[in-house]
Amino acid sequence: MNLDKILAFFVPKDVAFFPLFVADAKILIRGSELLKKLMTIPTAEGRMEVTKEIKAVEHEGDDMTHKIFQQLNKSFITPFDREDIQELAATIDDVLDYINGASQRISLYKPKTLIPVFIEMAELIHQATKEIETAVVALHESGKNREMIIQSCIALNTIENKGDDLYHLGIMKLFEDEKDASELIKKKEILETLEKCIDKAEDVSDTIKTIIIKMS
Amino acid sequence: MNLDKILAFFVPKDVAFFPLFVADAKILIRGSELLKKLMTIPTAEGRMEVTKEIKAVEHEGDDMTHKIFQQLNKSFITPFDREDIQELAATIDDVLDYINGASQRISLYKPKTLIPVFIEMAELIHQATKEIETAVVALHESGKNREMIIQSCIALNTIENKGDDLYHLGIMKLFEDEKDASELIKKKEILETLEKCIDKAEDVSDTIKTIIIKMS
Amino acid sequence: MNLDKILAFFVPKDVAFFPLFVADAKILIRGSELLKKLMTIPTAEGRMEVTKEIKAVEHEGDDMTHKIFQQLNKSFITPFDREDIQELAATIDDVLDYINGASQRISLYKPKTLIPVFIEMAELIHQATKEIETAVVALHESGKNREMIIQSCIALNTIENKGDDLYHLGIMKLFEDEKDASELIKKKEILETLEKCIDKAEDVSDTIKTIIIKMS
Repeated sequence: MNLDKILAFFVPKDVAFFPLFVADAKILIRGSELLKKLMTIPTAEGRMEVTKEIKAVEHEGDDMTHKIFQQLNKSFITPFDREDIQELAATIDDVLDYINGASQRISLYKPKTLIPVFIEMAELIHQATKEIETAVVALHESGKNREMIIQSCIALNTIENKGDDLYHLGIMKLFEDEKDASELIKKKEILETLEKCIDKAEDVSDTIKTIIIKMS
Repeated sequence: MNLDKILAFFVPKDVAFFPLFVADAKILIRGSELLKKLMTIPTAEGRMEVTKEIKAVEHEGDDMTHKIFQQLNKSFITPFDREDIQELAATIDDVLDYINGASQRISLYKPKTLIPVFIEMAELIHQATKEIETAVVALHESGKNREMIIQSCIALNTIENKGDDLYHLGIMKLFEDEKDASELIKKKEILETLEKCIDKAEDVSDTIKTIIIKMS
Repeated sequence: MNLDKILAFFVPKDVAFFPLFVADAKILIRGSELLKKLMTIPTAEGRMEVTKEIKAVEHEGDDMTHKIFQQLNKSFITPFDREDIQELAATIDDVLDYINGASQRISLYKPKTLIPVFIEMAELIHQATKEIETAVVALHESGKNREMIIQSCIALNTIENKGDDLYHLGIMKLFEDEKDASELIKKKEILETLEKCIDKAEDVSDTIKTIIIKMS
């Protein structure tokens, strides 16, 4: 039906994107590992240290996003629609932005304690980044790996549902336990940022779904 | 101009999507009716009951979204662009997610009272879901029903503006009346969730506008 | 590769969109100038006055968005993809909505003071709207102006990063200085709305990037 598709069949596609996305996913995983580490550090100084490391990882991610954008500007034939490549890079960047945002808030607002739900959320975020890597690696041969990609998208959806439940329970517990209004507001905003981070991981899954739907 | 469109003229389109979207819109309306009911229930136990019903409706919505995705994977020719079908299903799903989110927050945070603006917001959400149904039913013959669809999109935009105003006034009143910081934060977050739900209904309208613009 | 592009080469494009977008960007700039002014006004009455002016500018923006939508419905050949024209109009509209949202919150919540970070954020928003105007004007001859457009997109990204930092520092200072929980919540929400406004300006940049990527 789609004439572009028929023509595309005869023209070599630019495969330079795949290693860039895999590298981008690996940067994202490093960010999520540092976030998990951050949640277990007892001192403000130690947390500030890890926050700086996360900021550096976020800059690496920005550079990679820019490289993908430059590659797009050079490529004549892309393996999937140009706007979907741009969107995939942008949504992966968003997840890393929120990891950095959560870490910045912890270092700047200095809540008196880090509560257990922060660790659980960071663990979920880490799982989500690993699913993103699996899906992105599989995209290289999306025809063969279609089922694997769909499984990762379903897993990201399940993680998002778990994140929602953890968030609601975490806020409920905060309302019960935290009597200091300022502490309550600080912890609530950190928890909100962690929850939005997981939402953004689901946006990556939506972009990947759009890509494989167009290929079907 | 668009060669795909010219070819598409000669090939039968897969109309299996229309009944799925209509069913999806009906599930959404049921969700909004339960939300309206929830706002008038005086006891925590009664609210928990309706929250469970809303959760069940949200699961039905998830199943329908997945059915639409599966149908997309099977269809060769779709009535409009594949990515717009996926986007329409995703935005309808978002509205239902926020209905569920508002209901979860009410049951979990247990605010001491439900304030009148909650009922007004739930009524607006219900109106929005009815406009979504009208637009989705009309999409089946979008050439003939173009004007009707545009009217529903305008109505969704008007509802969103009303929601914004209600939200601002509701928060202002909360700041004046609610002296308990914890109660203030709880009610504010419930009101925010209701307002975002209406925003998501406008996103459905934006997706529908994109569909009919492409068809013009 | 893209057959539409080849055909489009021989057919005159509808250039009526460019003046509409330039007019839209100028409305947006006026909104951001009023927001800057608002932040320096000491009395509630004076602020209410400027808030009304901003509301009027927002209505002008709504009308312009609708004109662009009507033009889309009339045009056979558009200078770039129909959905990107719709998206560009929608994201510019979002920036103006958040300018209005911040101004509404200031007038309705009546915080006892306006803090310095509000002025800094309004200045950043004003810079962002000027970059949007530069990019939109340059779109008319996007082939020739490609580098200039990319520079504006990079500037919008830099502004967004500065906005994030200002936001985090502003909230940290609020937690330190503001002991009244209700004042804290009011100022925090105003600051959040200003920060989201800058995020929306970056969404304009993302849409423009999609447009020029498709043209490359």
